[in-house]
Amino acid sequence: MEKVNTPRAAGTLIDSPDITPEELQLAVRNHSMPLEALRYPITPVGLHYLLIHFDIPAVDPNSYELALGGGVRRPLRLSLDDIRSRPATTLAVTLECAGNGRARLAPRPMSQPWLTEAVGTAEWTGTQLAPILEEASPEDGAMEVVFTGLDRGVQGGVDQLYERSLTLADASRPEVLLAYAINGRPLPPQHGFPLRLIVPGWYGMAHVKWLRSITVIDRAFEGYQQATAYHHRQSGDDAGVPVERMLPRALMVPPGVPDFMTRTRFVEPSTQVIEGRAWSGRAPITRVELSADGGSTWTDALLEEASSPFAWRRWTCEWDASHAGDVELCARATDAAGNTQPLEQDWNLEGVQNNGVQRVRVVVGTVAGRQLPADSLA
Amino acid sequence: MEKVNTPRAAGTLIDSPDITPEELQLAVRNHSMPLEALRYPITPVGLHYLLIHFDIPAVDPNSYELALGGGVRRPLRLSLDDIRSRPATTLAVTLECAGNGRARLAPRPMSQPWLTEAVGTAEWTGTQLAPILEEASPEDGAMEVVFTGLDRGVQGGVDQLYERSLTLADASRPEVLLAYAINGRPLPPQHGFPLRLIVPGWYGMAHVKWLRSITVIDRAFEGYQQATAYHHRQSGDDAGVPVERMLPRALMVPPGVPDFMTRTRFVEPSTQVIEGRAWSGRAPITRVELSADGGSTWTDALLEEASSPFAWRRWTCEWDASHAGDVELCARATDAAGNTQPLEQDWNLEGVQNNGVQRVRVVVGTVAGRQLPADSLA
Repeated sequence: MEKVNTPRAAGTLIDSPDITPEELQLAVRNHSMPLEALRYPITPVGLHYLLIHFDIPAVDPNSYELALGGGVRRPLRLSLDDIRSRPATTLAVTLECAGNGRARLAPRPMSQPWLTEAVGTAEWTGTQLAPILEEASPEDGAMEVVFTGLDRGVQGGVDQLYERSLTLADASRPEVLLAYAINGRPLPPQHGFPLRLIVPGWYGMAHVKWLRSITVIDRAFEGYQQATAYHHRQSGDDAGVPVERMLPRALMVPPGVPDFMTRTRFVEPSTQVIEGRAWSGRAPITRVELSADGGSTWTDALLEEASSPFAWRRWTCEWDASHAGDVELCARATDAAGNTQPLEQDWNLEGVQNNGVQRVRVVVGTVAGRQLPADSLA
Repeated sequence: MEKVNTPRAAGTLIDSPDITPEELQLAVRNHSMPLEALRYPITPVGLHYLLIHFDIPAVDPNSYELALGGGVRRPLRLSLDDIRSRPATTLAVTLECAGNGRARLAPRPMSQPWLTEAVGTAEWTGTQLAPILEEASPEDGAMEVVFTGLDRGVQGGVDQLYERSLTLADASRPEVLLAYAINGRPLPPQHGFPLRLIVPGWYGMAHVKWLRSITVIDRAFEGYQQATAYHHRQSGDDAGVPVERMLPRALMVPPGVPDFMTRTRFVEPSTQVIEGRAWSGRAPITRVELSADGGSTWTDALLEEASSPFAWRRWTCEWDASHAGDVELCARATDAAGNTQPLEQDWNLEGVQNNGVQRVRVVVGTVAGRQLPADSLA
């Protein structure tokens, strides 16, 4: 294949805060979770964030088979019925895109231009991968497990099926699922129908959708999405660190009512209870704080229990919004391993693992001059 | 309320093809339909386009009531159970955002920056509005029916609930529904839970979500979304023409495999069958054509029957892709009223009713040098 020749390829650094037409093509296809959907402990389908690298493949569930092969003593071919007949597990899992926050970086690495809300929490139902791997019996020297999707495209000049690997140890963790249902219903096409991987605690790129095959290998996987993409690095020369588990993040439901275009919020003078959710893939969330002065001073939020070890925790915090004026609200999460969110985001070449605090502009004041709804006029 | 003071308000004209940070905030919340989803006659929830002006409101279905009042002899208050116990109708309806195509205009009016795919077709289940209006018995002189949503926000400096009106005649058409289900399931929050209006044939702005009340009035409705927004006009001085029924449009599933960032398509030399869907809110679709040379020459596509008078029609067209090279595919629809799609989009101030032909860049050539999936290596 000729090298893909475009004015601006993925990863190009853009100095302007404005979004290129190439990025817009991704932004209109994919979507993050409208922040008011933080009110739902389980994100309704259609509100959960979505990042599709290539196209959603069409899969016939009747002829579908998952192949498990490579360095194993007993290669397996499993139909959907085979997989559904195995013991089922349902688990609430928070998923966040590794590139969440990318569009706030300067310069901005060209890719999907996320702000801060590329997240969602779903109840995934599936069967544990570990017993299936055990049944296939990896050969001595097995090192990694490669997950191959049915979605095909070109990235970095490489024609590929989407593929990611896990170490055999990570793939064998009890929470790793082959999932066929979301929120109690069969997966819709965009979430990986008929079968996808769920790797609780990890950023979204690990949760391979439209699973075609699982391959045990005796070396480190060199595929594009594993060896080239998804590294936290400062430059092209920097080997970098692979992106794996989610850093902590808190998000709030923006209070009051929005302006359509700017999304600035308007709040009447009052005492507000700000609510939100916080998560980390590294350790349980132990603290969430709210600032009403752009990050100078902080108030501890009340934390509720999580519904699963892999789901976000709800938090609430009172905010004295009695004085008119412009306010910048910020939320910050900390986990039990001591990871917290930076006030200023460090930069990296791919724009991954950004967990700088959320900032919401609120105008406190009397919302006067409003146009009454027609039923008040009648 | 102080006038909303922002650097760039909705409607500001932007000369650059690059998207402003304000537009990005809308683009990450809302989403269009990934074009490969044109393969589904009924768009799965989560793939249907979505435009939310303000925030998705939280509605308690148990205390929910729809108020029908204003100039009527018998005001009504209807619970969800009341509405569900009435005769049910299910109808496949294609909905398109009035601003679809806006981001291709130059200069670009600042608002939701759609490319061409802000569309979807769902099976809506609800009850006809006409018998309910009849039961309420509009007073003599009744002229319009105002539909008020529960979603509140600021637009054009006006604090408002989202509201639109129809003439009494349009509101009384048999296909106009109060819908409580989509694709056989209760409405999800983002599609108007628990109740929304469906006005088949009209652009999306008419299909008011999260219905709070219906008000009969004896004059033309002057609300922001009716009298100010959603007009096809050339300048601020131009009274313009209200946006109502959808113009014809055809969209194709882009063939081959995509490049992640540029969405350029790669196709092996072959004969391809291009498939897509076409719709019009003005008259039945009578013709779809495909061009493989950027619009110079056209081939008639085969049209299938529509599943309802208000749903898109599937079309297919063979394309001889045997010669390597760069191709621009275009699709064009025409309806029975003689409306068709322009090759070059005329400009208008709000960027509404754009139905310029879709253009898809395809590279025909051998897709060599590909990285084989791991299961081929094993």
